[in-house]
Amino acid sequence: MDFNIIRCARAILHVTDLDASRKFYVDALGFIETESDAEHIYLRGLEEHTHHSLVLKKAEKPCVETLGYKVQSNADLEALSLLFEEEGHQTKWLENGEQHAIGRALRVQDISGLPLEFFADIEPAERLLQRYDLYKGSRMQRIDHFNCSVSDVERASAFYQEKLGFACSEYTDTSDGDIWAAWLHRKQTVHDQAFMNGVGPRLHHIGFWLPDPLAIIHTCDVLASMGYGNSIERGPGRHGLSNAFFLYLRDPDGHRIELYNGDYLTSDPDFKPIRWDINDPMRQTFWGHAAPDCWFNEASAVMDVLTGEEVEQKPGKLKQHKPTFVI
Amino acid sequence: MDFNIIRCARAILHVTDLDASRKFYVDALGFIETESDAEHIYLRGLEEHTHHSLVLKKAEKPCVETLGYKVQSNADLEALSLLFEEEGHQTKWLENGEQHAIGRALRVQDISGLPLEFFADIEPAERLLQRYDLYKGSRMQRIDHFNCSVSDVERASAFYQEKLGFACSEYTDTSDGDIWAAWLHRKQTVHDQAFMNGVGPRLHHIGFWLPDPLAIIHTCDVLASMGYGNSIERGPGRHGLSNAFFLYLRDPDGHRIELYNGDYLTSDPDFKPIRWDINDPMRQTFWGHAAPDCWFNEASAVMDVLTGEEVEQKPGKLKQHKPTFVI
Amino acid sequence: MDFNIIRCARAILHVTDLDASRKFYVDALGFIETESDAEHIYLRGLEEHTHHSLVLKKAEKPCVETLGYKVQSNADLEALSLLFEEEGHQTKWLENGEQHAIGRALRVQDISGLPLEFFADIEPAERLLQRYDLYKGSRMQRIDHFNCSVSDVERASAFYQEKLGFACSEYTDTSDGDIWAAWLHRKQTVHDQAFMNGVGPRLHHIGFWLPDPLAIIHTCDVLASMGYGNSIERGPGRHGLSNAFFLYLRDPDGHRIELYNGDYLTSDPDFKPIRWDINDPMRQTFWGHAAPDCWFNEASAVMDVLTGEEVEQKPGKLKQHKPTFVI
Amino acid sequence: MDFNIIRCARAILHVTDLDASRKFYVDALGFIETESDAEHIYLRGLEEHTHHSLVLKKAEKPCVETLGYKVQSNADLEALSLLFEEEGHQTKWLENGEQHAIGRALRVQDISGLPLEFFADIEPAERLLQRYDLYKGSRMQRIDHFNCSVSDVERASAFYQEKLGFACSEYTDTSDGDIWAAWLHRKQTVHDQAFMNGVGPRLHHIGFWLPDPLAIIHTCDVLASMGYGNSIERGPGRHGLSNAFFLYLRDPDGHRIELYNGDYLTSDPDFKPIRWDINDPMRQTFWGHAAPDCWFNEASAVMDVLTGEEVEQKPGKLKQHKPTFVI
Repeated sequence: MDFNIIRCARAILHVTDLDASRKFYVDALGFIETESDAEHIYLRGLEEHTHHSLVLKKAEKPCVETLGYKVQSNADLEALSLLFEEEGHQTKWLENGEQHAIGRALRVQDISGLPLEFFADIEPAERLLQRYDLYKGSRMQRIDHFNCSVSDVERASAFYQEKLGFACSEYTDTSDGDIWAAWLHRKQTVHDQAFMNGVGPRLHHIGFWLPDPLAIIHTCDVLASMGYGNSIERGPGRHGLSNAFFLYLRDPDGHRIELYNGDYLTSDPDFKPIRWDINDPMRQTFWGHAAPDCWFNEASAVMDVLTGEEVEQKPGKLKQHKPTFVI
Repeated sequence: MDFNIIRCARAILHVTDLDASRKFYVDALGFIETESDAEHIYLRGLEEHTHHSLVLKKAEKPCVETLGYKVQSNADLEALSLLFEEEGHQTKWLENGEQHAIGRALRVQDISGLPLEFFADIEPAERLLQRYDLYKGSRMQRIDHFNCSVSDVERASAFYQEKLGFACSEYTDTSDGDIWAAWLHRKQTVHDQAFMNGVGPRLHHIGFWLPDPLAIIHTCDVLASMGYGNSIERGPGRHGLSNAFFLYLRDPDGHRIELYNGDYLTSDPDFKPIRWDINDPMRQTFWGHAAPDCWFNEASAVMDVLTGEEVEQKPGKLKQHKPTFVI
Repeated sequence: MDFNIIRCARAILHVTDLDASRKFYVDALGFIETESDAEHIYLRGLEEHTHHSLVLKKAEKPCVETLGYKVQSNADLEALSLLFEEEGHQTKWLENGEQHAIGRALRVQDISGLPLEFFADIEPAERLLQRYDLYKGSRMQRIDHFNCSVSDVERASAFYQEKLGFACSEYTDTSDGDIWAAWLHRKQTVHDQAFMNGVGPRLHHIGFWLPDPLAIIHTCDVLASMGYGNSIERGPGRHGLSNAFFLYLRDPDGHRIELYNGDYLTSDPDFKPIRWDINDPMRQTFWGHAAPDCWFNEASAVMDVLTGEEVEQKPGKLKQHKPTFVI
Repeated sequence: MDFNIIRCARAILHVTDLDASRKFYVDALGFIETESDAEHIYLRGLEEHTHHSLVLKKAEKPCVETLGYKVQSNADLEALSLLFEEEGHQTKWLENGEQHAIGRALRVQDISGLPLEFFADIEPAERLLQRYDLYKGSRMQRIDHFNCSVSDVERASAFYQEKLGFACSEYTDTSDGDIWAAWLHRKQTVHDQAFMNGVGPRLHHIGFWLPDPLAIIHTCDVLASMGYGNSIERGPGRHGLSNAFFLYLRDPDGHRIELYNGDYLTSDPDFKPIRWDINDPMRQTFWGHAAPDCWFNEASAVMDVLTGEEVEQKPGKLKQHKPTFVI
């Protein structure tokens, strides 16, 4: 490949009330507000040396504008543009200066209809990792991954592995041998990008990395004491898949985020992807807890990179079912 | 009062398979096995300087033989015997030597039909608090409390406060002002004894104290890795009531235990009992999670101190309902 | 005894710069500031339901004005007054209204010259235990104990046990069988009051209770990030004696405080006090770390309850030496 | 470059008593013993999917036989051989089958005289990450880094960056602008390899990754309870440099290991290496604690890859001094 995708790097979420979002992300969860204006809030984690990893953008209704990946250099953007055009995907350039704090960017509608973005340059920001006096709420450290619901996981994950250079760490298959879900990475963690079979293209959640398990418990306590008990959708628990200690939250617009700690290093080319059977009760929650229906059914719509309209959704190719052990 | 009840101190549970129980309590949860014979396993926590706090006794079917309280001295037993007889309760003496590792003991059927026991003397055992090399599983430190389902909470908790000298730390009442549940203590923690309205007399659970919140998370991980995922009934979570970080487990016979950390000191006579409304969603789980039906409906039968038969159960006096927020 | 001392309850420390003290205790350590005026700052922990447990009082030079114990009722104050007068100690009454937020109080110079205070009434304050949104810094929960350097530990600890009703949980003795240090309690923790052989009467430190071990590590991180690295005098570490995970800090005036988690329940009358040999390297720090000289040599002067002057100090009766393993 | 070094992967340490080593590494620290024979113990961490990351080899005296790096493929070995030969370094091939569980390996004496090894193939082993029932002691997860004392840090770190493709995450320089120490990585953590100015070539320590900060505290408790208090050389503490929470131990032969948690992701090519001034008191220990002299002065000798003799040592090029703040 003539390009090097570094990692999942930022998302732009449309939200309906910036003040409500700020209260949730900044006051409760302790995200750092790098900057904001009447239309945007730019957020980052304590470990991040870049301007932001999450943009909240004022809009009429909630939607995902883009899922952004950092690449090695601007030259990589040209190579990626060529690849996506050859594959018949729509692309769009946002030149340097068109987006705040971000250099030249390539947006594409990917094979599942997800609105990706690639960029090499982002403004630096002071890294606050050792400003422990500023730690609060969840002590969020950095963005970790995107998890998307798509109608054809096998096709999506083949494209990411074969064309974009992602590696697979873990996957779920059905008794028929179909790929139900796949965890793919560029950086050396369990994933930058996960795909799950379902109505799509939709963003299921964005994962953020926390420093230790107690930070997740404290997040629950802080949310509850601020009246955000209803925002806690699932967890805390241990994922079988990825081994992470997790918590799923719904933000004021219903966007789902995962707070996450405890996966493992995926540096080795000879690491064998770990297979999970869809009916293994320890796959989703290692301890055997079932996830609530809303966790399976609800997710955020995504935007067409050219028209700005919501992308039409198709059902999952595999029969939509929760694992049988849940029934 | 002419006696001084120190604390909840031990329970005797009838179990149907000692080996299965040992695997659960000793191998998985890390209870210390002080001693055992063909009919009994005697268990204690790492902090305990006494022979045991839990006796598992081989029997045909699961049952609670007794809930034992330690008192200041043997003279207190006479005073307690007098009190219970005056109040019309059945009592029974077990003389020194009749029970292994326990001195003279008074057993009584309390006002709700619960099989209590009082004793002053128990054999000492090596305290293993600083034998960190022996820590495993849940790192259980000490017995903390009994929680019982009784048909008339108001009457039971009045007796414990007025006649036995317990203090109330927290309680739940209904919109009609009826006491739904009460947390009562002798030692300076939130409780030695809790009562909840329901079918009774039954033991809902025995609470054990852990050293820190991560020990609870590790317990889940260990249980799951040993195939005990189904034993995890509820949690981990934070109780609104008591503020404890908790986990509820069902042992191989269905007896429920709670692993528990993070309540507070209740030394002060001017501490005002904390009132919770039964419909406050933060009361049971501060984070708003609902408890499963089995947690509400299932509990262990208790034994008649004289006949050895199971005590007949009556429904809760207050209309049995889960809090409305759960519906 | 005709009185019931409940627990160590508050201290008044003279400090030279209230703003510097507030920055340390409130901004860095997260103590709750209940109230303040030009001369005082009243602080409490997140668990405390009473107005304050620490008063910082503006003065020309640092000193300890009083170490306060809560008693069961005002009648107990009369009984205590009688006892101390019979024993030949100076006493002084501060009537209701003379001290802010505190009812009638008895002050006495104790057998070692320490300025004690007893009171039954203190204004209530909102308990913030479940206001997790206010947790910061050390997440301090409650005052735990006083540790004092006195010239005759044996005499002091005999008085506290025989006349005041304290129980001994642990103690250190020398190879000659002399008591080098003693840990005494009224509430059911390892101590309310410790005595160590040394130049006295002086306050060595006040202990405050934290919710878990990670709170101690986070305190170090926060202090360092705010430029308070020099305030960390000793630790974090595990005490052999008491089993607590500890951190010793020096406030801006040099008063020493201990942040503390992980001792054990001392409810049982038949608990045998634990003996430590002064030369056991695990006694002070279970892991074997030596304490710095300043920790052994420096402590806060105390005030005469009648004259308001600093109490004259005498050397420790036992030969002042650090444990031999440190040499 | 025509090769891809993946990560630091294993070390072979010569030890004088395998039983003493096993007691320390396996019984106390909880390393997994994959296999052993009369001359070797092969150890791995709970996260590792490869046969071992540490080999303890019976020998007359303690020494470091080799520091091993995993590379992408066997073809990389040829390219590395070429590079080192061109640069005038001695190399030695160990063919497939010559070393247990390891494929073809290239050994070289690096620019500082350190005995490196490169290999692509290592036997797989069951990954025990989710066998929480086997967790004990330190719960060691995986090997993290090598830290070596060398006489010319600037030269060594230039070679690793320019010829071997390492990136620098953090470094220390003196007031004269000389590089005192450098932290270099291939995998996306703070380091695989650190160099510090000093008598060299020597191995200062091997770093191992733990799952959370409490695992480090528990390690101290377990070591102390097993009589290994003297093995704790420094910490626990927070490094300024790397931000890791650390503990330094000396094994029974004096080899130093670091238990380590809490550094950060180093995936980004535009991450600016962090500069620390040698006299910054927060560099070594963020909280300001000084390291003991032995930590500065003592380290393990290394072996000549051809002769098997100890490599002669030279003093550090920069004047050997501890940071001035320590004086």
